[in-house]
Order: sequence, then structure tokens, then C-alpha cells
Amino acid sequence: MKKKEIIVRCWIDIDGMRFFGPGRLELLSLIDESGSIAKAAKAMGMSYKKAWDMVDDMNTRGKKPLLVARKGGDKGGGTELTDTGRKMIARYGKLMTKLNSIVEKNGDILNLV
Amino acid sequence: MKKKEIIVRCWIDIDGMRFFGPGRLELLSLIDESGSIAKAAKAMGMSYKKAWDMVDDMNTRGKKPLLVARKGGDKGGGTELTDTGRKMIARYGKLMTKLNSIVEKNGDILNLV
Repeated sequence: MKKKEIIVRCWIDIDGMRFFGPGRLELLSLIDESGSIAKAAKAMGMSYKKAWDMVDDMNTRGKKPLLVARKGGDKGGGTELTDTGRKMIARYGKLMTKLNSIVEKNGDILNLV
Repeated sequence: MKKKEIIVRCWIDIDGMRFFGPGRLELLSLIDESGSIAKAAKAMGMSYKKAWDMVDDMNTRGKKPLLVARKGGDKGGGTELTDTGRKMIARYGKLMTKLNSIVEKNGDILNLV
């Protein structure tokens, strides 16, 4: 029995260049959990440099930064999501839920393959 | 003013490998119009070999072929869509219309970027 599935992906582009999508959602979520770009990069099997470049891009190319350096305190620094970063995760997640629900309702296309 | 947009893409995978998506939809549609794999390949700026390999994959990896050789007659051969091929174009098109309509309704995510 063959495994057949419908895959849906969604990205936000700015000036024709990818700005946000599944990879950055994962990175943002992992930074939110760990408070650390290094830990998030490691969890994704990605170099720190690549993760940092993504964070820098997310912080500079949009209207407002998605991430911000956390000030010292008990945990001694780290990185956290801005209000915009949180809203991005929430709205992108909602959008993906809706898209996946459309895909589920149209599963009969798989009967053709 | 930056150009901001939401991009949605959809593919059908068989056993974890792409079987149908935007590129093959275009190829299938162009073969349907022209009756020719060579003309369709040229229109897409793709080598004949690559187009032929895609056609072969679409004809062998699913349940039924999506394309079939047209028998001689006035037009002297060529390639045409099978009933399954036509249904695939129609249903994939419908699915993409629905996905794009969800994206349009959720355009407010672009206010974040």
C-alpha cells in the first residue's frame, strides 16, 4: 500500500524574498521555549550563524523586530519574542490550521493517484 | 512601499516523493493545449528529457496514467490527457482556489510585517 498525502506550505514574502515560513516558525518557537538562539539552532541541526542570520533578517526586514535580547536578571540574558513575534506565531499557526483543514476536506483528490 | 504577500503551495506526495504540484499542473495544462510534450517543455523552458521524465513518472507512479499517446489520424500522433489527467487538473485547481481564498481572507497577517 502506497502512502499518499497532500502537503500544503505557506510563506510570507517581502519584496519577493521569503520572510517567514515553516522553518522560521520552528526557530521562533524553539527560541521562545529555550530563550536561546544557540539552543534553538542546535535543536534544528542548524549552525548558530545561520540561525543568527535568520533572526537578524526577521528583526530588520519587517515593520518591527520579532525577537529581542533579554536583559540580564536571574537567567542572565538570552533572547525572547517581541509582541509582534508572538502575534506572528499565533496568526501563522491559525492560518496553517485553516489551510490544513481545507486539505483534509479535499482528501478525495488522493483517490486519483 | 514594500511588496508583501502570502504564498501558498500544495503538492501530492506518493511514498514521501513529490508526485503532483504547480510545475506538473503547468506541464499537464500545456500538453493539453498543444498536444505535444516537446512544445510544452519549450514553453516552460525545460528540456524535452526532463518533461518526458515527468510525464513518465505521472504515468507510472500513480494508480492510472495521467497522459496517453494519441493515435495517428489528421494531427499525426501527439500526447493527450487521460480521464484521470483531466480530473487531476480539475480537482487540483479547485483545491488551489480554496487554499488561495483562505489566504485572501487571512491577509491581516501581513499587517505584522
